[in-house]
Amino acid sequence: MISTVDLEHNFAEMAKFSLPGEGITRLAFSDEDWQARDFIMGLMRREGLVVRVDGFGNIIGRREGLNPKAKTVVCCSHIDSVPHGGNFDGVLGVLGAIETVKLMNKNGWQNYNPLEIVVFMCEESSRFGVATLGSLATCRGLSLKRMKQLKDAAGKSLYEILLARGLNPENMEKTINLKNLKACVEMHIEQGKVLEAMQKPIGVVTGIAAPTRLRLQLDGKADHSGATPMQLRSDALCAAAEIILEVEKAASSAEKLVVGTVGIVKAFPNVMNVIPGQVELGIDIRSIDAAAKTAVVERVKKFIIDTGKRRGIKTALELLTDEKPVSLAPAVIKIIEKACKANNIAYHLLPSGAGHDTMHLAEFAPAGMIFLPCRDGISHNPAEWTSMTHIAQGVEVLYTTLCTLTGTNINNENTQNNN
Amino acid sequence: MISTVDLEHNFAEMAKFSLPGEGITRLAFSDEDWQARDFIMGLMRREGLVVRVDGFGNIIGRREGLNPKAKTVVCCSHIDSVPHGGNFDGVLGVLGAIETVKLMNKNGWQNYNPLEIVVFMCEESSRFGVATLGSLATCRGLSLKRMKQLKDAAGKSLYEILLARGLNPENMEKTINLKNLKACVEMHIEQGKVLEAMQKPIGVVTGIAAPTRLRLQLDGKADHSGATPMQLRSDALCAAAEIILEVEKAASSAEKLVVGTVGIVKAFPNVMNVIPGQVELGIDIRSIDAAAKTAVVERVKKFIIDTGKRRGIKTALELLTDEKPVSLAPAVIKIIEKACKANNIAYHLLPSGAGHDTMHLAEFAPAGMIFLPCRDGISHNPAEWTSMTHIAQGVEVLYTTLCTLTGTNINNENTQNNN
Repeated sequence: MISTVDLEHNFAEMAKFSLPGEGITRLAFSDEDWQARDFIMGLMRREGLVVRVDGFGNIIGRREGLNPKAKTVVCCSHIDSVPHGGNFDGVLGVLGAIETVKLMNKNGWQNYNPLEIVVFMCEESSRFGVATLGSLATCRGLSLKRMKQLKDAAGKSLYEILLARGLNPENMEKTINLKNLKACVEMHIEQGKVLEAMQKPIGVVTGIAAPTRLRLQLDGKADHSGATPMQLRSDALCAAAEIILEVEKAASSAEKLVVGTVGIVKAFPNVMNVIPGQVELGIDIRSIDAAAKTAVVERVKKFIIDTGKRRGIKTALELLTDEKPVSLAPAVIKIIEKACKANNIAYHLLPSGAGHDTMHLAEFAPAGMIFLPCRDGISHNPAEWTSMTHIAQGVEVLYTTLCTLTGTNINNENTQNNN
Repeated sequence: MISTVDLEHNFAEMAKFSLPGEGITRLAFSDEDWQARDFIMGLMRREGLVVRVDGFGNIIGRREGLNPKAKTVVCCSHIDSVPHGGNFDGVLGVLGAIETVKLMNKNGWQNYNPLEIVVFMCEESSRFGVATLGSLATCRGLSLKRMKQLKDAAGKSLYEILLARGLNPENMEKTINLKNLKACVEMHIEQGKVLEAMQKPIGVVTGIAAPTRLRLQLDGKADHSGATPMQLRSDALCAAAEIILEVEKAASSAEKLVVGTVGIVKAFPNVMNVIPGQVELGIDIRSIDAAAKTAVVERVKKFIIDTGKRRGIKTALELLTDEKPVSLAPAVIKIIEKACKANNIAYHLLPSGAGHDTMHLAEFAPAGMIFLPCRDGISHNPAEWTSMTHIAQGVEVLYTTLCTLTGTNINNENTQNNN
């Protein structure tokens, strides 16, 4: 087991870069974020990484390879937070990656392939309503128009904020060479309860679920709750209730793993003595299996239309997001599984319900993710917590994984993997 | 037929005392309410009424009787509204009563019994979740504890709001002498579709259905909507959906006329990517049959407990109101029927599904209500509308009724009823 003294210190330091109040509040591009970035770049340099920052503010710390022209292995995560979030979401992956570099230095590991530790900007959607902006800018690009459209709660555009931080949105320099990647790995807290329930310290992620998000508007009639007999009503909330239960039922009975949630309900006028005339629902359906997700979405859509007709309620459905799930690379999954076995650490294969930066990198390189359990599955919350024991195990698995990836070809794991 | 010029003007003036937006928004104790009260007190004084305001803010305009010590006849209604409500609910009863006083002045009617036109505060439950607070304070009293407990959406207690309006909740002055009442009459829009369907301009109300109101708090777990498999969830909104449908089902299948409504739903945190951990519901169940209502309430309560157990959701049920249905006085009903006949206006006997201030007064005096049709039965909605023709007929019936009640004993209608 590795020593966690430095890790504990670094997590404690990171917790200081936050607005006052419960938990961690370190929105992307904020002063707290900027201080935390300086701290992280200092840690990288102390371990000998060559640090550069691209035009979007993504930080890249490079450990040169024995063959500088060989394909690069990327290990990424993020350090921005949601308001009143925890100290592990994202930070774990960055501090864990730096710790593996420290172990490489200590063990005299000579990586054949270059290794780049990447801190992606603005992974959380809290500031601009869109998640994983740093990896999106790297992998797909962001138009100037979009950067000017995306605004925070104070009305400032992403474009203005990039300029204010001395970055150059007009001519965004990309410094990660997407055409020369060998693999991408990300370690992250699970943000779910599966590993805890299974009592497994490591999750090996098989794919990243992508959401289909719908906004449903139900229009009935806002009559007096005392004077309107039951058979004369057009109660939008009763129609909504049927749909809420159908989303649950459709996801629960899907053949492959699908989750379906009605997270938002707003009723109007929302008072005791008026039948709800209007209801708005926010529906989120996810899976790592595109076909299974589509089947659930179609079933729910049909049910909404039928329920509207049966109850005399007008329905208007808006598609907000329809992302494709990402499968992670079997070769990388296999390397992570072997790393678990080599360190004698139990693991469980599971999908990621949440989105991560790695889903964009997965279009350009074989990608994998390592999950660590978090207490009660709680994340995006001051109560978010992962034990140092699990973090140490995660670092061991990440270290072995990165040594394997930087020292060998994916298809020939034994080359240069002997020290 | 009476002239409706002044009435039309007064309805138009009342419509101005509203927050911007669709329909009338004039919550009790708001600035709009306070402006409307000044307008009403001005109308009362113009017709010679002696105006006083009690410790809760109820307005009483008195037309002294030939015998000031004789029992008082009360004619009441209210002027507060639901959010985005109509211009007739309550206002009709107040403007109509003032119009009858104008007719008494014009016709030189000398009332033997004192007549008091009462505007009860806070009839709508929109602000504090409890209806008919002004008449409740008058007839049963409100403890200081209750006034401190009842809070509006902004978290302000009724107690604080009374103080802020210069009223005295600590030592509430009651100025309606409940021990010396001869009768109580209220004119109101039906808020239902029965009179329109029967094509009758007047409804003579036989009884008032009373609500049982419950606030239900559901506590589940606010987990990540992507990362939490369906079988590991404690989704408070799914439990709420089952309960919403059970309220509908239980009321619809009751043997006697019962209505059941979930008018309020509030989910937390109410965002797309978190399973709703907490949900609050406001449940309203009414009937003019006490036993039928109790049976539905008990069925819903049992279902709530069973659903909480089955889904692993904590449930906390608070009884906000549990009123008994009220039968109106046969003697007053008879006087209103005679008033209709005297004016050659068709009428229909019917129960009131909605609660009214008169239900509290009915414990202290023989009470009656006059209903006017409203278009499509719509109320508590910007589309609420009653024709000026029906309003004029209603005022004629109310005038004759109040003349009969103030001029005679109920059992001897001919005394002093000849001018």
